[in-house]
Amino acid sequence: MTQSQYKALSVDDAVTYARTIPDFFAQDADLICEEIGDGNLNLVFRIKDSISGKSLIIKQALPYAKVVGESWPLSLDRARIEREALIIQHSHCPDLVPAVLGGDSELAITVMEDLSQYTIMRKGLIEGNVYPGFAEHIGRFIATTLFFTSDLGMNQQHKKTQAASFSNPDLCKITEDLIFSDPYRNSDNNNFTEDIRNETERLWNDPELHFEVALLREKFLTHGEALIHGDLHTGSIFIREESTKVIDPEFAFYGPMGFDLGAVIANLLLNYASQPGWSSDMKTLEARRDWLLSAIRSVWEQFEYRFRTLWNDECQDPVFNSTGYQDFYIRKLLQDSIGFAGCKVIRRIVGLSHVADIDAIADESLRHQAKITALQIGTALIKGGRSAQSIEEVILAAKTAAEKEGVAI
Amino acid sequence: MTQSQYKALSVDDAVTYARTIPDFFAQDADLICEEIGDGNLNLVFRIKDSISGKSLIIKQALPYAKVVGESWPLSLDRARIEREALIIQHSHCPDLVPAVLGGDSELAITVMEDLSQYTIMRKGLIEGNVYPGFAEHIGRFIATTLFFTSDLGMNQQHKKTQAASFSNPDLCKITEDLIFSDPYRNSDNNNFTEDIRNETERLWNDPELHFEVALLREKFLTHGEALIHGDLHTGSIFIREESTKVIDPEFAFYGPMGFDLGAVIANLLLNYASQPGWSSDMKTLEARRDWLLSAIRSVWEQFEYRFRTLWNDECQDPVFNSTGYQDFYIRKLLQDSIGFAGCKVIRRIVGLSHVADIDAIADESLRHQAKITALQIGTALIKGGRSAQSIEEVILAAKTAAEKEGVAI
Repeated sequence: MTQSQYKALSVDDAVTYARTIPDFFAQDADLICEEIGDGNLNLVFRIKDSISGKSLIIKQALPYAKVVGESWPLSLDRARIEREALIIQHSHCPDLVPAVLGGDSELAITVMEDLSQYTIMRKGLIEGNVYPGFAEHIGRFIATTLFFTSDLGMNQQHKKTQAASFSNPDLCKITEDLIFSDPYRNSDNNNFTEDIRNETERLWNDPELHFEVALLREKFLTHGEALIHGDLHTGSIFIREESTKVIDPEFAFYGPMGFDLGAVIANLLLNYASQPGWSSDMKTLEARRDWLLSAIRSVWEQFEYRFRTLWNDECQDPVFNSTGYQDFYIRKLLQDSIGFAGCKVIRRIVGLSHVADIDAIADESLRHQAKITALQIGTALIKGGRSAQSIEEVILAAKTAAEKEGVAI
Repeated sequence: MTQSQYKALSVDDAVTYARTIPDFFAQDADLICEEIGDGNLNLVFRIKDSISGKSLIIKQALPYAKVVGESWPLSLDRARIEREALIIQHSHCPDLVPAVLGGDSELAITVMEDLSQYTIMRKGLIEGNVYPGFAEHIGRFIATTLFFTSDLGMNQQHKKTQAASFSNPDLCKITEDLIFSDPYRNSDNNNFTEDIRNETERLWNDPELHFEVALLREKFLTHGEALIHGDLHTGSIFIREESTKVIDPEFAFYGPMGFDLGAVIANLLLNYASQPGWSSDMKTLEARRDWLLSAIRSVWEQFEYRFRTLWNDECQDPVFNSTGYQDFYIRKLLQDSIGFAGCKVIRRIVGLSHVADIDAIADESLRHQAKITALQIGTALIKGGRSAQSIEEVILAAKTAAEKEGVAI
């Protein structure tokens, strides 16, 4: 890739590019384009034909993080990584990943299916929606994409070549710093409100916590188990009642499987912690929290069921089929997932990047309480992950933190 | 690399190429060349100036495994990997690795320092030599090369790029099959004598053993901890009394650190198991075995001392310096090393490729006994590795197997 040919697209450039996509827009299409990106790292154009109603998305990576001007350079190669990850994930779960329609590595562009009829799941959860298909969808997405990109489900030599092509140092660095390092010390990258300074400083002075985080970061740094999504929070999930689409795999690399499961669990827990700030009464609060906890349980169960089924049906390798190995593997994966979930909860409270579930709570004391609850859950998961035997331990950690709230709504 | 420009060198080609190495041979040098390769995968030319006495080695990878004609194709890229690994290892341990004088990726050539004044360590051990500097040398080599190529001792983003460039699927496949798979089932690749059929079939029907081997293979497949040598047996070590040189890192890739330590320990144990076949009397047998066991202990101690010193002196990363993490890390590394050592002992008895320590024993019943002893040690290490707390457990496994011998010499 020669970066010299890169330029950020204008709205007109995007329309011109959209017309080059074969077999999509009619020759007389009346194309209207708007830039709808709300992220920090990319331009996102929606191009729609006002005659046929057909539309597509052009996503272009920026060579820097937009949120801080041009001062934080980021490799444009992440656009290639995102496009190739989408294509692989789509091949395994065509109903759960947008179709890629085209792309250009020099321009750092991916052209894909428009999902404007979907809602970002984080927004949907804040608005109080439930998604009965979600656990099956996301459990199947994680199980299938991880299994078929791991040594269990693909040729082990081809996997090594694929792992090399998904080397993603720039984006891994963001995770290594913001999730596994900064929140546990007095770092300039942290971003927390003064009302939780005591709780934050407790994170900085907890050797047991630091030890567990060191083990989890080591897994992230060294365990190339599968092509993970790498950023599977509820802002990377488009949803409507009967359908789910996973987007934005620009953090994809060969990493530990539990990281994706942990991300989903963490973001359901962050919404759980935020509920007193969003639920209008005690009954609603209980119903929302019950749904969220059962969603966490179901995500794990659906994942486990799918993953074991794939293993039993697709994996002929005699070593992997050694007695007891599958059970051991699944338990370790659960333990990793719980630990990673804890890290991902904590970073959203004291680290650089927060979530609207918590920060958009209008009432200051409820917002404060939500942060405390989240920190308690996160700490319990990090400390308990390595010895966990069941997903019920996550449920218990959430309920225990909630019981301490004593919040009157 | 365009493979089309590759051709296997003749002796004359090697001389011509040697003259192109800058600042090595004088213009009037009288160069004599012989092909001295005894491996299966490479040509090795020694080119010597009969006037000055100066000499160098040209090693060329063959595009197939020589032992089975041209039927087993192997990537020529392994020559680049070997050369680049030698350069990195030499930069960290200049006294323990031959200097690279040149190379050509298209011809799959590495030009390096001639070590003809050294003996292959396996031969030296069979001949009954002791090497007082060995433990310090190899412990330092392993500690230093692993530390400075791991997340502990190098930039974590640069490490990822380096790991991608050392992707080595062809040679990893050999290890995955011959070490971690074939010996534990009735595979055509196995190579064992009928006198140990019962013991071999016991390996094929031991679920506990298979479970532990599955965990060890998983580490080999997924744990990219450091740039490991990947084939650190006593045939990859050139030695004389006061000096040691590690050669042949063509299996190098980003893998689990314990694999290199395990290889050294395993090959000392194979020689230990072989000793009744080589020692002329009981006193010699005891002295040889005592030296070998103390060498194993010292290799671990030297490694641990160097590795901890480097960690304490060179690693500023606060996460890695979390309380208790270094101790935990070292213990896990010991456990991995013991497990890998067990696998490497067993593969040399029942797998495709054997060692002269055992197979060259003249007396049939002593050769048989050596195989039984080795299999007992290997099995004990694989089963005991994951719970091991000290290198003394390796010593104990060796002594326990020896006590069962009841060999009269």
